[in-house]
Amino acid sequence: MVRVDLNCDIGESFGRYTLANQEEILGHVTSANIACGFHAGDPSVMRETVKIAIKNNVKIGAHPGLPDLVGFGRREMAITPQEAYDMVVYQIGALQAFLTIEGVKMQHVKPHGALYNMAAKDAKIAEAIAQAVYDVSQDLILFGLASSELTKAGEKIGLQTAHEVFADRTYQEDGSLTSRKQSNALITSQEEAANQVIRMVTDGKVRTVQGTDVTLRADSICIHGDGEHAVDFAKYIKRELQSKGIEVQAFK
Amino acid sequence: MVRVDLNCDIGESFGRYTLANQEEILGHVTSANIACGFHAGDPSVMRETVKIAIKNNVKIGAHPGLPDLVGFGRREMAITPQEAYDMVVYQIGALQAFLTIEGVKMQHVKPHGALYNMAAKDAKIAEAIAQAVYDVSQDLILFGLASSELTKAGEKIGLQTAHEVFADRTYQEDGSLTSRKQSNALITSQEEAANQVIRMVTDGKVRTVQGTDVTLRADSICIHGDGEHAVDFAKYIKRELQSKGIEVQAFK
Amino acid sequence: MVRVDLNCDIGESFGRYTLANQEEILGHVTSANIACGFHAGDPSVMRETVKIAIKNNVKIGAHPGLPDLVGFGRREMAITPQEAYDMVVYQIGALQAFLTIEGVKMQHVKPHGALYNMAAKDAKIAEAIAQAVYDVSQDLILFGLASSELTKAGEKIGLQTAHEVFADRTYQEDGSLTSRKQSNALITSQEEAANQVIRMVTDGKVRTVQGTDVTLRADSICIHGDGEHAVDFAKYIKRELQSKGIEVQAFK
Amino acid sequence: MVRVDLNCDIGESFGRYTLANQEEILGHVTSANIACGFHAGDPSVMRETVKIAIKNNVKIGAHPGLPDLVGFGRREMAITPQEAYDMVVYQIGALQAFLTIEGVKMQHVKPHGALYNMAAKDAKIAEAIAQAVYDVSQDLILFGLASSELTKAGEKIGLQTAHEVFADRTYQEDGSLTSRKQSNALITSQEEAANQVIRMVTDGKVRTVQGTDVTLRADSICIHGDGEHAVDFAKYIKRELQSKGIEVQAFK
Repeated sequence: MVRVDLNCDIGESFGRYTLANQEEILGHVTSANIACGFHAGDPSVMRETVKIAIKNNVKIGAHPGLPDLVGFGRREMAITPQEAYDMVVYQIGALQAFLTIEGVKMQHVKPHGALYNMAAKDAKIAEAIAQAVYDVSQDLILFGLASSELTKAGEKIGLQTAHEVFADRTYQEDGSLTSRKQSNALITSQEEAANQVIRMVTDGKVRTVQGTDVTLRADSICIHGDGEHAVDFAKYIKRELQSKGIEVQAFK
Repeated sequence: MVRVDLNCDIGESFGRYTLANQEEILGHVTSANIACGFHAGDPSVMRETVKIAIKNNVKIGAHPGLPDLVGFGRREMAITPQEAYDMVVYQIGALQAFLTIEGVKMQHVKPHGALYNMAAKDAKIAEAIAQAVYDVSQDLILFGLASSELTKAGEKIGLQTAHEVFADRTYQEDGSLTSRKQSNALITSQEEAANQVIRMVTDGKVRTVQGTDVTLRADSICIHGDGEHAVDFAKYIKRELQSKGIEVQAFK
Repeated sequence: MVRVDLNCDIGESFGRYTLANQEEILGHVTSANIACGFHAGDPSVMRETVKIAIKNNVKIGAHPGLPDLVGFGRREMAITPQEAYDMVVYQIGALQAFLTIEGVKMQHVKPHGALYNMAAKDAKIAEAIAQAVYDVSQDLILFGLASSELTKAGEKIGLQTAHEVFADRTYQEDGSLTSRKQSNALITSQEEAANQVIRMVTDGKVRTVQGTDVTLRADSICIHGDGEHAVDFAKYIKRELQSKGIEVQAFK
Repeated sequence: MVRVDLNCDIGESFGRYTLANQEEILGHVTSANIACGFHAGDPSVMRETVKIAIKNNVKIGAHPGLPDLVGFGRREMAITPQEAYDMVVYQIGALQAFLTIEGVKMQHVKPHGALYNMAAKDAKIAEAIAQAVYDVSQDLILFGLASSELTKAGEKIGLQTAHEVFADRTYQEDGSLTSRKQSNALITSQEEAANQVIRMVTDGKVRTVQGTDVTLRADSICIHGDGEHAVDFAKYIKRELQSKGIEVQAFK
């Protein structure tokens, strides 16, 4: 039977600042990536978010980011591989403690924002992150962009990896996402987006903007937690996947 | 046989800022409290400090502080008990990950600076910290000022506690330290300081500035890692303790 | 003719975090206190907020806070008077540069949150803040809780001060606000709140929770920018004041 | 008469962290770049540093950096030109307030570390910084790498610029500095370094690592404030320049 995981970023509030509706999405995904205090999140938000994820029966992963709160971890920084390693270890540990308290196991690690993008392209950063995850626990699943340097580094070191795909983003011939600076980066039709992920999950293929097909593995679909229609879209994608006989669930 | 632990704060460098000589002291203490990134320390400093502590065969503890880097965690903040709980859990976890990588067990937790002082006096903050330590791991030893609210809270919840005493600080009749704002807060004679700790360790008593004796337990002696004469002083205290037949070693 | 100023805190967004509706209130107040990056705000938010305030013809003041972003500057910290002085100078300067660019003069300085509360009670902190404002510019108006240490310190040094009063908070016999920890701290009836401020503005008196009257000066009324009914409340208060012939305007 | 300015970064301590000897260098330079709290420095350090610079009769400039304290502003970040503009305005303003208090005029602005390097190569970032400086005050001198995008942007907008050269760094044919990753990036001989700057100041030329000459303007020489031999080197360079009849002084 064909299966796929739906993952979503949560726990991105900070102090008095609340990002609304993030929790609502939890009823519709199977894995949640919790911010760890560098790009977003704080210790109190982390504790509360862990509890909410558990209540919603969603698997929990760490979502480490760059130390750039004002930039929400979205601005690439010229960090060294060693610094990438250290900040990932630190953030996994910080979240782990809140899971330990609740007696729950961490399922995965997915880098956030610019760190995710850097790890997709830069083999040295990717290897440092994979090593960090591996050193903390070989049981963790490493989430990365499908067919990227990060999933490659994870597989090389012996971690289980989850190749992540996007429903609402278009793809280039080399398997990378079309840059958001391009006008054709986003798929705005829900139907089209659903069709794209269903094909990725069932056939392992995606039609690129160049009109050709590329092969990729689709283990988990990224669901955005914010935006007006986030919850509607999550529901729709899930229903469409299930209607095609695809099982929507986290990793065992 | 009488035993006592010598503990020291380390890992308080940050980025380009190095606090010199902190590592040198490690040859002369038995337990080390490693800063966790809130009042001092950063992920790279933490990784390196853990390695150095292990190389020196020193037991490692977390040294969580207030989120006040510019104030070095020395300024009391009106945090809630829940906030104290959350920030202690977070910081223990962050350090734990670096110990996990090295395959080494965390021995203890000792709050830093203003958080330590608040926990000594404020029962609610003390209980929150003790609960945080207990929830993360019941095997951790909680370090606190001897006879303080913090050691009391630790004992109440069922943690092993280490009552900490100071060689170079004078005591008040209620067992508290004389405020540094008082002229007689510090003991500057090495000999006098050594005599004070030897008496605390062997007889469980200290002569207060009021001229009376108070009873306290001396499980661990705080050794300052900075200052010009820190290393000399550590060596001297250790030698004097050993010359009285006191065994200087960490907890089992 | 009797006059009063209505002031409101704005510019408290940070990076990706937006505090909604803060700008909407600007149509209904006469002075705006702009966060300066310590408890809230960032350089980009400050630039945009200055522009919006100017467009709304509202006078601008600096709103310096404690360096505690995660606590939104609401947790008292044991800072020294020198530290208070330095952080106020820094924050006034940072905002001043954005006003310089727009060719607009800064009207006032109002400390934020815990710094405001500390300055109301602690003469040394109050004097340090008043000195900081005075040293940067003797033309700045210092906003502080009516009859507090801060307004006293401002007057002593020779600054124009604005005694601030609250519509929706109850008062104690000593002129202080009832602590929010008390159940009777807030006035929830709009009518009662309006009556309280009208009496403070016209008669210089407020009925305390003890049932007696205390005398105070009411130069500016604090209008909250957040909360569901903030804009409605601001409109209501303004209309009621004007209906009694009170002129609502900033300082000349 | 030929003149040149010697500039040095100072005020890079932070909280409890002190960068030693930075002040000692002030006796040997003519302009000082003071950190503004983003990559280093804090309000108290800034106040003290301004006083020390004035006492040493050194001209003062703002030294704005990226918001990356742990990386000391040395890691390039993918900021937008608007973000560069805003952070430079903010930091100039913050320092300006401490100068206002002392009744001293700010002479210049020199971006720090990665921001300096980005502004040397990236025209859009360079233009944003030049615009920020110009908008705050058209009287400020903009310091940038000689013949870089930053000096070009400054000149285009109408600012006085100072072309900065390095005594102890080698140059490439395109006028850029040899990357520190190359083994031949540094000139370690004091004599050779002095000869290089004397030629740059008097003839406007430097011999590149490729063996050719490139033309550049040398208005100010960067003197490093740290390192064991920093003060000796500063003295030596100054003496050699003066021995060739070059006047060492700040801008008028």
